[in-house]
Amino acid sequence: MSAGKQSRTVVGDINSLVLEYTAGQDYKLDRRLVEADCVGSAAHASMLAELPGGARLFSISERDQLIAELRAIMELGRRGEFEITVDDQDVHLAIERALTAKLGDLGKKIHTARSRNDQVALDLRLYAREQLLATVLDAAELARALSKFARRYAALPMVGRTHMQPAMPSSVGLWASAFAEGLLGDIELLWEAYRQNDSSPLGSAASYGVPLPIKRELVASLLGFKSAERNVLRAANQRGKLESIILAAMSQTMLTVSRLAQDMILFSMPEFGYFKLPREYCTGSSIMPQKNNPDVLELVRARTAKVKSFADCVFAIVQSSPSGYNRDLQEAKEPFMAGIEITRQTLQIMAQMVSGMRTDRERLLAGFTPDVFATDRAIELVAGGMPFRDAYHHVKDNLDELAGEDPCEAIRKKTHLGATNGLDFDGLDADIRQISKQARAEQRRIQRRIGKLMSST
Amino acid sequence: MSAGKQSRTVVGDINSLVLEYTAGQDYKLDRRLVEADCVGSAAHASMLAELPGGARLFSISERDQLIAELRAIMELGRRGEFEITVDDQDVHLAIERALTAKLGDLGKKIHTARSRNDQVALDLRLYAREQLLATVLDAAELARALSKFARRYAALPMVGRTHMQPAMPSSVGLWASAFAEGLLGDIELLWEAYRQNDSSPLGSAASYGVPLPIKRELVASLLGFKSAERNVLRAANQRGKLESIILAAMSQTMLTVSRLAQDMILFSMPEFGYFKLPREYCTGSSIMPQKNNPDVLELVRARTAKVKSFADCVFAIVQSSPSGYNRDLQEAKEPFMAGIEITRQTLQIMAQMVSGMRTDRERLLAGFTPDVFATDRAIELVAGGMPFRDAYHHVKDNLDELAGEDPCEAIRKKTHLGATNGLDFDGLDADIRQISKQARAEQRRIQRRIGKLMSST
Amino acid sequence: MSAGKQSRTVVGDINSLVLEYTAGQDYKLDRRLVEADCVGSAAHASMLAELPGGARLFSISERDQLIAELRAIMELGRRGEFEITVDDQDVHLAIERALTAKLGDLGKKIHTARSRNDQVALDLRLYAREQLLATVLDAAELARALSKFARRYAALPMVGRTHMQPAMPSSVGLWASAFAEGLLGDIELLWEAYRQNDSSPLGSAASYGVPLPIKRELVASLLGFKSAERNVLRAANQRGKLESIILAAMSQTMLTVSRLAQDMILFSMPEFGYFKLPREYCTGSSIMPQKNNPDVLELVRARTAKVKSFADCVFAIVQSSPSGYNRDLQEAKEPFMAGIEITRQTLQIMAQMVSGMRTDRERLLAGFTPDVFATDRAIELVAGGMPFRDAYHHVKDNLDELAGEDPCEAIRKKTHLGATNGLDFDGLDADIRQISKQARAEQRRIQRRIGKLMSST
Amino acid sequence: MSAGKQSRTVVGDINSLVLEYTAGQDYKLDRRLVEADCVGSAAHASMLAELPGGARLFSISERDQLIAELRAIMELGRRGEFEITVDDQDVHLAIERALTAKLGDLGKKIHTARSRNDQVALDLRLYAREQLLATVLDAAELARALSKFARRYAALPMVGRTHMQPAMPSSVGLWASAFAEGLLGDIELLWEAYRQNDSSPLGSAASYGVPLPIKRELVASLLGFKSAERNVLRAANQRGKLESIILAAMSQTMLTVSRLAQDMILFSMPEFGYFKLPREYCTGSSIMPQKNNPDVLELVRARTAKVKSFADCVFAIVQSSPSGYNRDLQEAKEPFMAGIEITRQTLQIMAQMVSGMRTDRERLLAGFTPDVFATDRAIELVAGGMPFRDAYHHVKDNLDELAGEDPCEAIRKKTHLGATNGLDFDGLDADIRQISKQARAEQRRIQRRIGKLMSST
Repeated sequence: MSAGKQSRTVVGDINSLVLEYTAGQDYKLDRRLVEADCVGSAAHASMLAELPGGARLFSISERDQLIAELRAIMELGRRGEFEITVDDQDVHLAIERALTAKLGDLGKKIHTARSRNDQVALDLRLYAREQLLATVLDAAELARALSKFARRYAALPMVGRTHMQPAMPSSVGLWASAFAEGLLGDIELLWEAYRQNDSSPLGSAASYGVPLPIKRELVASLLGFKSAERNVLRAANQRGKLESIILAAMSQTMLTVSRLAQDMILFSMPEFGYFKLPREYCTGSSIMPQKNNPDVLELVRARTAKVKSFADCVFAIVQSSPSGYNRDLQEAKEPFMAGIEITRQTLQIMAQMVSGMRTDRERLLAGFTPDVFATDRAIELVAGGMPFRDAYHHVKDNLDELAGEDPCEAIRKKTHLGATNGLDFDGLDADIRQISKQARAEQRRIQRRIGKLMSST
Repeated sequence: MSAGKQSRTVVGDINSLVLEYTAGQDYKLDRRLVEADCVGSAAHASMLAELPGGARLFSISERDQLIAELRAIMELGRRGEFEITVDDQDVHLAIERALTAKLGDLGKKIHTARSRNDQVALDLRLYAREQLLATVLDAAELARALSKFARRYAALPMVGRTHMQPAMPSSVGLWASAFAEGLLGDIELLWEAYRQNDSSPLGSAASYGVPLPIKRELVASLLGFKSAERNVLRAANQRGKLESIILAAMSQTMLTVSRLAQDMILFSMPEFGYFKLPREYCTGSSIMPQKNNPDVLELVRARTAKVKSFADCVFAIVQSSPSGYNRDLQEAKEPFMAGIEITRQTLQIMAQMVSGMRTDRERLLAGFTPDVFATDRAIELVAGGMPFRDAYHHVKDNLDELAGEDPCEAIRKKTHLGATNGLDFDGLDADIRQISKQARAEQRRIQRRIGKLMSST
Repeated sequence: MSAGKQSRTVVGDINSLVLEYTAGQDYKLDRRLVEADCVGSAAHASMLAELPGGARLFSISERDQLIAELRAIMELGRRGEFEITVDDQDVHLAIERALTAKLGDLGKKIHTARSRNDQVALDLRLYAREQLLATVLDAAELARALSKFARRYAALPMVGRTHMQPAMPSSVGLWASAFAEGLLGDIELLWEAYRQNDSSPLGSAASYGVPLPIKRELVASLLGFKSAERNVLRAANQRGKLESIILAAMSQTMLTVSRLAQDMILFSMPEFGYFKLPREYCTGSSIMPQKNNPDVLELVRARTAKVKSFADCVFAIVQSSPSGYNRDLQEAKEPFMAGIEITRQTLQIMAQMVSGMRTDRERLLAGFTPDVFATDRAIELVAGGMPFRDAYHHVKDNLDELAGEDPCEAIRKKTHLGATNGLDFDGLDADIRQISKQARAEQRRIQRRIGKLMSST
Repeated sequence: MSAGKQSRTVVGDINSLVLEYTAGQDYKLDRRLVEADCVGSAAHASMLAELPGGARLFSISERDQLIAELRAIMELGRRGEFEITVDDQDVHLAIERALTAKLGDLGKKIHTARSRNDQVALDLRLYAREQLLATVLDAAELARALSKFARRYAALPMVGRTHMQPAMPSSVGLWASAFAEGLLGDIELLWEAYRQNDSSPLGSAASYGVPLPIKRELVASLLGFKSAERNVLRAANQRGKLESIILAAMSQTMLTVSRLAQDMILFSMPEFGYFKLPREYCTGSSIMPQKNNPDVLELVRARTAKVKSFADCVFAIVQSSPSGYNRDLQEAKEPFMAGIEITRQTLQIMAQMVSGMRTDRERLLAGFTPDVFATDRAIELVAGGMPFRDAYHHVKDNLDELAGEDPCEAIRKKTHLGATNGLDFDGLDADIRQISKQARAEQRRIQRRIGKLMSST
């Protein structure tokens, strides 16, 4: 059938085959890096201009000319109008060419004391920095939606399960806030990934530094990084590894959301009917007229596998390549960006689904068969003085005596920290607020720093 | 920085967010399936028209009208002119709409006794069938290039290594033909995947069949499948699983090629200098003027990790979804197609690189330090009557006596099957020829069958 | 707390640390290889004795002495009485020492023209050969149990699901036989792995052959392999790769069983109550007196992840090691053996659970809400002449008219191949029988060959 | 051959098969948890005894009796004399039985308001806490060895590579300290895992709390945790997830060490000869008398794949199991413990190998072919005023002018932060010292807290 296209490749021109194989998707993916690359070049040029005797490399007025031009490219990039063609190969060459076209020899000077690896490494850190903060905010938003849902239904009984089997009295509030708390842990992993990312690799060049007295700490500071990488080869070796650390944090976030989605699928099945999913997030069938399927939730489940496989892919790429820069690392870019985007979209759509989800009190109460109260009864016997193992056997031998317990009362009775009537919503919400505040403050700090750098004329 | 785009999504229209999240890349990926979908619809309509009393469903002339129209769409698809928009969602709806636009009610009838799942399942099997045969041919081509290289340098000594350390006398011929033989094993895995794929799922509908006396075996036969799936739910359950089996075979193929690439990188380093890579497959550096890097080979290594992670992704998607159709399976399509394409491109470019690679006899001989002959010497003592463990210790204690052996003689002396002077090139080449012949015969058989189906007016 | 043990290691004797790190679990794992190693040595000695002029290497009477001693060791091994200590390192040295203790110099001669890598490679193939046949039989046994269950409940309606939501009328017979058919596909993968494994690596030595005119084809034949590996370096390169191919086939088998287990967990939840699991395969809770949990099925699910991770581990080991033998391969042995054992145990216990599972007709029928009949109704309208898309919309607009359909009638009406009333049980059972027959014939063939070899005095 | 053992299982007693399948390795693995379980029980009993009206549950004197007995069991455990049999199933039941044997009804009371899941969750956190601190110290020790090696050879030139090809002048000091710095990042991941682990799950019971006013914060404080988990279901959901987070941090640590090992293998090959590995960490060959193989380093590479696969296994287990406790989680224990142990052993043995490694100055200098100086020369032209792209092309066109540069001078010239002559060893060592200090302080803090708890009579 359509073998045509690919077999043509074989007989084609050697150079085009090599170009196709080596360029990969870079020229498309790099659209996301236009701003980062401009900002990085501005910082590099500013540093060069301030070197003792640096005027020969870059005068102050050259720096200003360059930054003005970079600002223009950034503006084009923001409007989606800066093009990167397959011939450009990547954003770095595309910008260098645009600069040279405008500024002549001055454009050629920007690559002084810098390699393309340097730029990729820096651009990815700037991109990661921005995306990680945004992901923290997205995750906090989902946690907020869950917390709100939990508060609303804090007193609504829901059978707690172990082994998927009915186990003990629980509540919708406990169920939902457990996922909110789960996300708080994931957010800590995202912050740790943020810290790992928060140092400037620039000045590593081809991994071994340059024979010029550049000021790597100054560049780091101009860009708002906490510090410069202390060892240039380490800076190179972090490529790929850093992406895999960030994707691992994204995977853990997806894992929490995937289990939430799985529970939502299960408990909205007609056999349970605990939850009603907002209809606008469900879809029909091409052959079954009656269907209303939780497609979004199923995709969340599958995309968790996807983000995890992206993380594993990048880990494997690093593992099978030796130290120092290797071309293998280019292949990390696509899974890296895709993994982040999937995670963010998933968090956003899930926040909306949770906000729109409704409960069915009657169906939730109907789930309380007498045996759900067995453990509570045994523990009451214990409180009355019977050793636990005896109480356990007593209740096991008299399971039929358990009818008629009240689920609402059962969940009111558990008052210790973290139990159905001991949920510390205020503490949870304070944490969520604190996280959002911290992420926004960091965003503003960076914007101020970058703003100052780019307006330094 | 550019958080703009994604945060806008959040406040956007609900339906567009859901559509974006659920549609995924289908509408782009499905361009590869235009022909398969036309062929599948033609077979389905032909079968309906032949049902007893089927005239009410599809008359012979309706079938002919439909097939003529499908032929036209196929032709557009081949020229890359059949468009699938994001509103179409996928190739199935795009073609149904195109048919309905031309044929009115007749277009609407094509979905009789068939679901979209049915179509996806079938299209992917038709796609996989074609791609697997092409991959077999690509792999055979690389095996052929390796075998040719091996024959040319059959008598050229090369130090054999274990633990990456020099170990025993070997030859370029042994080294290269080992990879050719390795590919033969991978090709067997591709054939097994082909057999797993070689039955028609059509008629499974939404996984549970239809209340019409359709002839599933007839459809299978019209499409040139070996048989129809014997159980409709099994047909549905094979979705995803089949893709993961095929990608596992692709991964094993990549694994062989990756180790070949790794050896080529190693042995063309200046410290070895055994091989000279064809310069047109190497690339330079943006900062180091002298560099000539084996980028293609490094990308082969990294893309092996990629194909493997695609296989694992699909496995995980299947593992975390229950039986029967689930939307999760949509996510298998992208890694499936990407994995196949990467594998094929890699085989093609490697066949060319191997063909263009040169050897350096002097450097190869220089690798033969005296200790490389130690084992051979010990075994000669054994042939003279000394127990092996004693010979081993004798040589170990007298390593300095080993100077002056002749590498060419050493590899001539090993004459048993599979050793440096016992390589059965004729057997190897006969196998490669046989494989190509078989794959081409299968391609022709399918083309004849499809040709007959589509011209059945 | 108990950091004691491990920190002591650090200050310990260097050699013991190295020995502990490098020996790994080999000396324990190798208990499974005693018989294989004896058989391999017998074949190797027999071949040496038959070489032209081989009498100097091994006379006929030496061969007989040796084989008699190997028989004795095999017998000890079968009774679990052949010890391998950590000082022996592995089964190969343990047996060589035992032979030398008994036979003196003759024991030392057995290592002539052979390396330990050779032996490991051979032993693992002999082990894999036996285990693969046994796994095929175990899988066939589970398929048989499923088929029997399916026949028994062929006419028992069960709601068919897509997206986990009720979708269309189906039957217990369709559900169960879909898994039986699924296993048939997995068994084909096991057979392919068997064929990949079915050639003798012996004579590869340290990967590069030996300077003696050994007869590798003869050894292969004595051991009942289909052939000898045609290239000695390829034989070495297959180490690890072969294990990963076998484990991939095991993983696919587990994947089918895992989805079966997941369905059994779901449909035996009280909210469904379709199935009753045999109580002796369920366990209680230490705190909840009423619980009866499907622990075995949950472990099946988790162990599927385990076997898959073993397969991936071995793949990664191979991917990150260069060609020729590397010590990395030792690490493949533990996941290889563990993956096979888990798969076999799982198949065995699941065959018993399926055989003991009961159904609840009333609960199964209760699942048939009217909308389950929607698609069937639409297709009936089509059979009456209405275009499908119109029928679809008609039913969708009149979902409340669907009450009162009869599930039994609904599944009787689907008569085409593979549908609820078109299940080809005879074909399925014939395939299962054929598979078992083939595996048993192969077992007998091998036993005869080995029997002849070991009694060749 | 030896199919005997396993086929016997099939016909065996049902209960023994179930017990074998479900018990898994718990009873062996749990030997590592004796101390943790005793400590956890002591804290639980202390808390119960302090409840208002808790005297009925546990009087002060009962608590003291119990703790005295737990101390005795701990002591046995430390001496390796506390046995857990397969009938005990796990450490929790073993200790409960031992207590009941000694203390009668009092032993039975210890399970009040607590489930086995509670205990497993707690024990694993106590185990993880201890192991994570020890791993931090092990990693710091390897970083120290690398830093010392780097200082010793700070001025020793070594060709820096990209794409494995010679690229630019570098030094042994830069190479070694890059790995030391790499480990510092990994240690941060270990600390983050430590923080994730640092809250007490106790009081979650079967995931839903208990109807008694237990004081979960008090237990957390008695055990030295930073806090109690704020939500009991979240505490349960962290099982498996936490293990996968810890194993992911271990995997990243192994990844750094694996690349170090790979470089050591490469640069100690005779073709390079840069490094001489300490002979006592290398091993010979059974067939090649001359061999001296870097087996330890190869095993490090393979075990990195192993630890990563353990992390992925646990992730997959969590992903495919629903929220609340599921038996699947038992399967996480073995890879969790094995992954930690492998990582620690690897760090320990590598610290010793690095300390014992020697360099060969002559071979290192011999690697400096003229083209290695090309980039430095281009940048010098830039410093003299030539635009970089022009300088790049000038040097590229005159590669033969580069002979005669001095490597020592070349690495002296690079003085900026992180370059060959700008390595901040003092900063690096201060960080390593600070890490060790912090880990040891935390160990002491915990020991004091536990000491107080266990001597509270």
